[in-house]
Amino acid sequence: MNSSTNQVYPVIWHNNSVSLIDQTRLPNEYAFVEIHRCSDMAQAIKTMIVRGAPAIGVAAAYGMYLGAREIETSDRNQFLNQLDKVAQLLRTTRPTAVNLFWAISRMLKTAYETFGTVEDIKQTLLNTARSINAEDLQTCYAIGDNGLKVLPQTPEKLTILTHCNAGALATAGYGTALGVVRSVFREGRLARVFADETRPRLQGAKLTAWECVQEGIPVTLITDSMAAHCMKEGLIDIVVVGADRIAANGDTANKIGTYSLALVAKAHNIPFYVAAPLSTVDFSLSHGNEIPIEERNPEEIYQIGDTIITPTGAEFYNPAFDVTPAQLITGIITENGVFAPGELTKSRIKQFA
Amino acid sequence: MNSSTNQVYPVIWHNNSVSLIDQTRLPNEYAFVEIHRCSDMAQAIKTMIVRGAPAIGVAAAYGMYLGAREIETSDRNQFLNQLDKVAQLLRTTRPTAVNLFWAISRMLKTAYETFGTVEDIKQTLLNTARSINAEDLQTCYAIGDNGLKVLPQTPEKLTILTHCNAGALATAGYGTALGVVRSVFREGRLARVFADETRPRLQGAKLTAWECVQEGIPVTLITDSMAAHCMKEGLIDIVVVGADRIAANGDTANKIGTYSLALVAKAHNIPFYVAAPLSTVDFSLSHGNEIPIEERNPEEIYQIGDTIITPTGAEFYNPAFDVTPAQLITGIITENGVFAPGELTKSRIKQFA
Repeated sequence: MNSSTNQVYPVIWHNNSVSLIDQTRLPNEYAFVEIHRCSDMAQAIKTMIVRGAPAIGVAAAYGMYLGAREIETSDRNQFLNQLDKVAQLLRTTRPTAVNLFWAISRMLKTAYETFGTVEDIKQTLLNTARSINAEDLQTCYAIGDNGLKVLPQTPEKLTILTHCNAGALATAGYGTALGVVRSVFREGRLARVFADETRPRLQGAKLTAWECVQEGIPVTLITDSMAAHCMKEGLIDIVVVGADRIAANGDTANKIGTYSLALVAKAHNIPFYVAAPLSTVDFSLSHGNEIPIEERNPEEIYQIGDTIITPTGAEFYNPAFDVTPAQLITGIITENGVFAPGELTKSRIKQFA
Repeated sequence: MNSSTNQVYPVIWHNNSVSLIDQTRLPNEYAFVEIHRCSDMAQAIKTMIVRGAPAIGVAAAYGMYLGAREIETSDRNQFLNQLDKVAQLLRTTRPTAVNLFWAISRMLKTAYETFGTVEDIKQTLLNTARSINAEDLQTCYAIGDNGLKVLPQTPEKLTILTHCNAGALATAGYGTALGVVRSVFREGRLARVFADETRPRLQGAKLTAWECVQEGIPVTLITDSMAAHCMKEGLIDIVVVGADRIAANGDTANKIGTYSLALVAKAHNIPFYVAAPLSTVDFSLSHGNEIPIEERNPEEIYQIGDTIITPTGAEFYNPAFDVTPAQLITGIITENGVFAPGELTKSRIKQFA
């Protein structure tokens, strides 16, 4: 059903270790880092060698297996105790993306529910991590194609604005928001992507633009604050972004700047969609204000490459995410269909049916 | 009346030439460029060695004198003809800031209205340029102090968000939006400035932060897309920005991102003020959509210092300004008082009274 030419897979199980695309070196270098140990995976998540909520989930799942592999006991209870510590280590890497916690929980549950020897559990954990990886790819294909259902009828060729990178690099492959872009492109209905550069880490400029260029998708890069002006000029038909955690009521945490973008889209009556797997929904949180927001190092603001952009003496505030209230979101595009933000609970019925 | 400690003057008449602070080298170097010829002044305006609407006006006035000084004729008509060409050269430097055209027109008018020899006209032109310079400084003091009239009563210590640099560096000195900040600081009512970094050229990070640090004004730098999140968190009490051109109905062209900021301020019921001299108002334009918007080199987006942030093959859109509709503006703070955007025409009565 899906004929994407995408060949970008940020997390690959290969030769008994994990190959990660080093996303801190793109777009200048397309290089891989080999991860053999759980502590290295934790570091890779923390330093954003791998980033993007679904990709973090996949990486953490492999991290759980790598950690399990390092445990030197054949006693099941001792093994499970130590696996809890592995889980705890991985949980402290990043606070906002819920896919991290979702994947760790699923791996832990698998361990606890697997009968047999410790070696059997380890093998099952590897199989589960590989399943999470494969499922996320299928999920992205489904999200991309479900996105086709909500496209405006006119114009025939659409310009889609996106923020940060919710692409192949942020998932097992294909992407969520960029999955929708890829499906629209495949169907011949894409005029162009407008990509917010997404300060401070510039994932739009570095990663989204790179992915688009790889596949010949026309992409126009703008600074984040230009989006409203572009909308006013009639350049944008629809906005699609990813998500790091969605509360049960549809409030959505995503890369800093998403909330601002949702507000300006609303002011111009431009449809604003979130594209995310259901594993990004945290049904344990009733509202978005319960989502923990990571604050990162000020260096991300004041240093770009080797350039220090501001004088000594200035202070900084660097929240990595913000929360977009459900009422600003036109719909949430998932693998099980498109839901109004207030109707996310219905997705569970479909999911488990 | 005004006891600012500000010692930053971006345009200084000195030793028969003009000293400009080279604003492209701040905050790393605080250095001056000596301008002796009109063509060099045109280049300095174009390359943003001097920038900010009122400062451009002052620089262009001196540019007119430097151009006049170079004209080698004692024939009044020949002189005036050649002065028209000087004006034409300076007019082509930047399209949006109206103070440029205002200052050039005032200088031309002075030349045409001055009796006596060509040497007399030249002397009058120098005097007029120096008057424009001195008046702009006084205007900024008045704007800063008029800003005190619109401060919210609570909290006692206010946090002011500003965009780009409408400071001493953007004027003859003291600043418009930062003039208000300076006056609020002097009165002991300033908690802190939040400064948008202002991509692509980072005038907030480079210039506004530098000015604040010089004077011990607490400043927190954020990326442009964080403003909405900060407002939602209750961190911002009032927004004050500058202007490059204001239409008769109050629509305001200012640095790209201002429109976005006005929209998100409105969504949070945060007062949004424009601070500008009346020379920034273009009464010949009834609406903001008539204001020409400069589009600048894409390099401003894709290169920061020596770092290229995006892959080859991406395209760019780089509008340098946007237009904020009057209905998003709480008030316009001028040297003659604070006006509702729809009541700007009243400022003329007061101005000429």
